[in-house]
Amino acid sequence: MLRYDHRNLLRSDLLPAAIPASRLADMQPACREAHEEILADRRADILGFYNLPEKDLGPITDFLDKLDPAFDTLVVLGIGGSALGNRALYSALKTERNLPRKIFVYDNVDPVFLHEILSQINLDVTLFNVITKSGTTAETMAGYMILADLLKKRHPADYTRRLIVTTDREKGFLRQIIKREGYPSFVVPDNVGGRFSVLTDVGLVSSAFAGMDVVALLQGAAAMRERCSEPGESNPAYLNGLLHYLYMREGKNISVMMPYSNSLYDLADWYRQLWAESLGKRYDLKGREVLVGQTPVKALGTTDQHSQVQLYTEGPHDKVFTFLSVENFAHDYTIPNLHPDRDEVAYLGGRQLSELLNAERLATEIALTRARRPNCHIAFPALDELHLGEFIMLYEIQTVFTGKLLRVNPLDQPGVEAGKVATYALMGKPGYEKERSEIKDYQAQRGE
Amino acid sequence: MLRYDHRNLLRSDLLPAAIPASRLADMQPACREAHEEILADRRADILGFYNLPEKDLGPITDFLDKLDPAFDTLVVLGIGGSALGNRALYSALKTERNLPRKIFVYDNVDPVFLHEILSQINLDVTLFNVITKSGTTAETMAGYMILADLLKKRHPADYTRRLIVTTDREKGFLRQIIKREGYPSFVVPDNVGGRFSVLTDVGLVSSAFAGMDVVALLQGAAAMRERCSEPGESNPAYLNGLLHYLYMREGKNISVMMPYSNSLYDLADWYRQLWAESLGKRYDLKGREVLVGQTPVKALGTTDQHSQVQLYTEGPHDKVFTFLSVENFAHDYTIPNLHPDRDEVAYLGGRQLSELLNAERLATEIALTRARRPNCHIAFPALDELHLGEFIMLYEIQTVFTGKLLRVNPLDQPGVEAGKVATYALMGKPGYEKERSEIKDYQAQRGE
Repeated sequence: MLRYDHRNLLRSDLLPAAIPASRLADMQPACREAHEEILADRRADILGFYNLPEKDLGPITDFLDKLDPAFDTLVVLGIGGSALGNRALYSALKTERNLPRKIFVYDNVDPVFLHEILSQINLDVTLFNVITKSGTTAETMAGYMILADLLKKRHPADYTRRLIVTTDREKGFLRQIIKREGYPSFVVPDNVGGRFSVLTDVGLVSSAFAGMDVVALLQGAAAMRERCSEPGESNPAYLNGLLHYLYMREGKNISVMMPYSNSLYDLADWYRQLWAESLGKRYDLKGREVLVGQTPVKALGTTDQHSQVQLYTEGPHDKVFTFLSVENFAHDYTIPNLHPDRDEVAYLGGRQLSELLNAERLATEIALTRARRPNCHIAFPALDELHLGEFIMLYEIQTVFTGKLLRVNPLDQPGVEAGKVATYALMGKPGYEKERSEIKDYQAQRGE
Repeated sequence: MLRYDHRNLLRSDLLPAAIPASRLADMQPACREAHEEILADRRADILGFYNLPEKDLGPITDFLDKLDPAFDTLVVLGIGGSALGNRALYSALKTERNLPRKIFVYDNVDPVFLHEILSQINLDVTLFNVITKSGTTAETMAGYMILADLLKKRHPADYTRRLIVTTDREKGFLRQIIKREGYPSFVVPDNVGGRFSVLTDVGLVSSAFAGMDVVALLQGAAAMRERCSEPGESNPAYLNGLLHYLYMREGKNISVMMPYSNSLYDLADWYRQLWAESLGKRYDLKGREVLVGQTPVKALGTTDQHSQVQLYTEGPHDKVFTFLSVENFAHDYTIPNLHPDRDEVAYLGGRQLSELLNAERLATEIALTRARRPNCHIAFPALDELHLGEFIMLYEIQTVFTGKLLRVNPLDQPGVEAGKVATYALMGKPGYEKERSEIKDYQAQRGE
């Protein structure tokens, strides 16, 4: 089970500026109310991620059982919630578990990035997975058109078995294409938003293809859901959410997630979307302008000790830190005592790399704590599916709970619309002519 | 030449909350003073990076001319300033320029990360480059001892030609090892701090090995130095530094660098160290507690439009944005008109991927500007050594200039010492016994 240590968010002897116990007690009614709202949302079936541990894995298993075993690579075409969970899980486990099949995630429209992926794969044994709920995401559709066209030309007889589509069950352009062309398909459920969707087909098809134990992923999620089912100090999602809420209210507008594990760095990226998109809101539920949101930052231990820790220790008091660590790695190395006569390095001789890594994490925790920087720690006993499933559910619940405390809607993202509209206008999509002329004015004003 | 567009940091019609022109005028004396201080520092030879365009490349060229051409991979062992510049340059150009040789950067003590690199290289044709000025950086020395030991065992007769060392010219443990063992060596100059050192041997040896045109890198740096040699609006380093300083003073404590290019994402990481470590300071030059520093954040366009832009558009007004873009890519793709009858996607047909990428950048600029978020834009005419050299010099000058305005020392990093000491103590390095017993108390207090 994940170990959650919040003491350096709380201890007044270490952190005189931190949250007094009385403040926590004052918040109990608000926490209970947030909990009741979550229960009501679950009854109304708008928090579908809570039910994913019971997901029927049959269709995924069936598909993979029948899949031509020659396929050894899968390329995800998706962006945001359709990409970050896939990448986070694969990065976490590919080396640690020696996963037998490869995953690439093309989550941009950068041509050099596409060239790089295409130069690393063999098109004849690569499966593509187009993931978009709406079926109209510009970036994903651009990638789909390029790759589907490539496949059609190279494999005219059987291109439809080389591309799968994950989209809305009934609606949307891509569902029609599936019916017309016959691509295998999977479903993005209605009641699970993109950034909460990693434990749906969105993340599970790729993960199962790569060779992960997706049953264990769901078991981990179920265990964490159980641990976070009631209010109180033993519920890490609510406790961490509450503490982050209080620090946010104190002006700490940056949340740094710092894994001491390269494998978990992309998990911090998954967290970035979840936290930023769910809580970064202009209006509260009553329509009052609130302009809230904590900016998530990913940092990497020990690497960023030599880049960011100077700022973290001495800069403004505007951050809350979350360390992630791994207690046992599948691969480890003993540092040989190459220069036993030299004090500069002899202390490292005979130690495990993982021991140094975890000592540096503790050292950084101590240094930040002495500098009065609030920090918490989530320890993974091992890098595996079970604990990743726990982590995902922990943060999904924490995010919704924190949104309730902030009185914002953690499930929408009205602020991304303007950019999409401007893109459509610039690219000449029908129906966006008025916006297009406004953009021309913007450019003209600037002499462009 | 890089195109720098600062208008969305300034225009009052777009940004009523932005900096009034009068404020800029008020700052002129401070800017002139900062400029004079930079000139004095250069005369005192403490800003060595200014002189790097004149660097003698002879030793690097000689070394590579004589190097066994069988070597096709180089692994950098270094961290922070010894790693980030190397990675940034290689990421920027490896695919765009089809570089003939590979670079890996092992800048951590994560055992899984080491396993991943070792499983991707052939030890027989791999050169290692150990980079540390002091020769005592724990992370780098751990990697050095593991790899040097591996090489000794595998190639006892000639391991010393498989590892090069880049360290202080005279001092330090590693310089003694070089003399004893006979490793080829390069120099980290005395008057160039780690985070400013990419255009020294620290970054140039690996870059030249990979196949980059390092002469063009230095030419670009020289051109930007010339462009930034006098105060005034035509000096982008001073202007951008001043504007960031003013926004910092207005409480915008986050600087988001958002390249619309996967290749430039690691350049934002290089920037993160430069900006965070140089400006994040507890004390000013007079020893007064100031707790300044802007937190650099890297984001990726278009990817993070589907992750962070909700927060950027609607969240707190606590950020300044810097877009990076590329005007011409060496690789590009035309999006085929796969479904010409469908408005949902037909507008994309026939367009270049790069066109969509750059349209989305402009769309995001417009959306952020309408939401009154200050932003600027640096456009690369192409992804090449010349413009990367310009960029490096631009930001090095900007960073020092901004440090002068803030009245802090942009060249030191006193805040990283505490963590290093705690690591030494935890690992049992001789001389750190007192610290070790204090840490034991910390752990005992916490019941560990």
